[in-house]
Amino acid sequence: MGQARIKEKLADYKQVIETNLEKLFAENSIPRELKQAMQYSLAAGGKRLRPVLCLVWGQAFGLKREDILDFATSLELIHTYSLVHDDLPAMDNDDYRRGKPANHIRFGESTAILAGDALLTEAFRLMLTTRLQPERVRQATAEVAASTGPRGMVGGQVIDMSLSEDPETGLDSLKQMHGMKTAELIKVSCLSGAILAGAKDEDLDNVRTFGTSIGLAFQVADDILDVEGDNASLGKPVGSDQEAGKTTYPSLIGLEESKKTANQLVDKALERINPYQGEHADFLRDLSNYIVQRLE
Amino acid sequence: MGQARIKEKLADYKQVIETNLEKLFAENSIPRELKQAMQYSLAAGGKRLRPVLCLVWGQAFGLKREDILDFATSLELIHTYSLVHDDLPAMDNDDYRRGKPANHIRFGESTAILAGDALLTEAFRLMLTTRLQPERVRQATAEVAASTGPRGMVGGQVIDMSLSEDPETGLDSLKQMHGMKTAELIKVSCLSGAILAGAKDEDLDNVRTFGTSIGLAFQVADDILDVEGDNASLGKPVGSDQEAGKTTYPSLIGLEESKKTANQLVDKALERINPYQGEHADFLRDLSNYIVQRLE
Repeated sequence: MGQARIKEKLADYKQVIETNLEKLFAENSIPRELKQAMQYSLAAGGKRLRPVLCLVWGQAFGLKREDILDFATSLELIHTYSLVHDDLPAMDNDDYRRGKPANHIRFGESTAILAGDALLTEAFRLMLTTRLQPERVRQATAEVAASTGPRGMVGGQVIDMSLSEDPETGLDSLKQMHGMKTAELIKVSCLSGAILAGAKDEDLDNVRTFGTSIGLAFQVADDILDVEGDNASLGKPVGSDQEAGKTTYPSLIGLEESKKTANQLVDKALERINPYQGEHADFLRDLSNYIVQRLE
Repeated sequence: MGQARIKEKLADYKQVIETNLEKLFAENSIPRELKQAMQYSLAAGGKRLRPVLCLVWGQAFGLKREDILDFATSLELIHTYSLVHDDLPAMDNDDYRRGKPANHIRFGESTAILAGDALLTEAFRLMLTTRLQPERVRQATAEVAASTGPRGMVGGQVIDMSLSEDPETGLDSLKQMHGMKTAELIKVSCLSGAILAGAKDEDLDNVRTFGTSIGLAFQVADDILDVEGDNASLGKPVGSDQEAGKTTYPSLIGLEESKKTANQLVDKALERINPYQGEHADFLRDLSNYIVQRLE
């Protein structure tokens, strides 16, 4: 599949997810300012990669897209909450996100904290309204909680905050931090789709390794694009990591080694899709390749 | 039952819950500083009212205490996260909580925000490990999410932040705010125990009204004790609401009317326990009466 075809397919999914986001907030039981703050950051865009991965893996194992659309959309709520809290003055203190004022700049710090809290809690409510076998819903939602809590995404952010003050950060610490902060949520986006579809244990093992590998590959690719990419595809100014004195893959092992690492991670992911056929597996293959094609 | 007997029984439950809290954190998969910050605020004490209510209602409908101990304990994680975030400088800006430095004073603001996020997420993970019928676990956890998100506790805190700047706050706004900010979590603590035990719809209706009524009664009683109580039973200095210029029940309708309101709410709760017999129903009756007895 060419890059144009992949982008088109991603855009289709993005449209479906954003329409669902609008539908989910088309009611008035949430205090007005809070709802505005939640929707503001949800509307800020992005590829909606996490819901896409959940939808595609769920379909690869036989579900219809609409069966897990709310569950998949909730993963975007969790991703968005993490961005809103990461941007806070006490955290990364970023005034802008994707070219728009950060949530706390637009709505004030207290509302931004509460909008993040609300997005996270609402995500769990949404996941638990999924009308599939209750045991699958329980297991998939428990996996999301495990991957996004103190042993996963939140723990990774704590490590990131301490690493950012440590000029001696090594590759192992960087890997651990990205593994928790970024890859866990991407992994569980894939995994939850497969669990909800009733995939077998050996399939779940493939999905888990696939998800972790492309999660890490995306992060390495982001680090590389920060050095040599263009602002549009990155969603932030090129060179901003270096300017912020951040430890990245290129700053630790150089650009060439970083590209090699990204390629190896994508190869590992591709290996785990090998057993699967059909349009959804094909799309996952193309999506994996696309991560490193962007770097060429 | 005399007040001494109720206090003894509450102390027994408190011990069981605090032992479980220690057990739940006796592992090392959470980054050290984050775990310390989470445990610090969990150890700050209180009556553990929310887990107690979940345990007692679950047992009233036939469960064993240990079947829902982790689920019940998770409600204390949620209550604690809400206190940690409420105390933040951007929110109520409280430096002390129960006589100890607030989480953000002890660990810094970024860690306090993340400790709150971690407590909330970990609560959902814990709830979803409950080994009872998956459909009941799904429903009970969904109810907790609904009651603590933008339509419940978080929404109530947003309204509280805006009311605190409004000298014209009326009784209706105050009721709505406390209903969302305080009563929803207390209600769902009762409700989730009953759902997990497989209680019927008409029973759930009783439990729901019981929980909402005593949730509101507790809040009115707290407002009253802030005017005429002693520091020890209140957990904060007497008169601190008035000093902070907070709108309360006594400031709006006077002490006598506030006591009448508390009594009416407790009567409403008692009415809904009428149909039930046995030691657990008796304890709930005593606990309800205890709320207003404290005021005499």
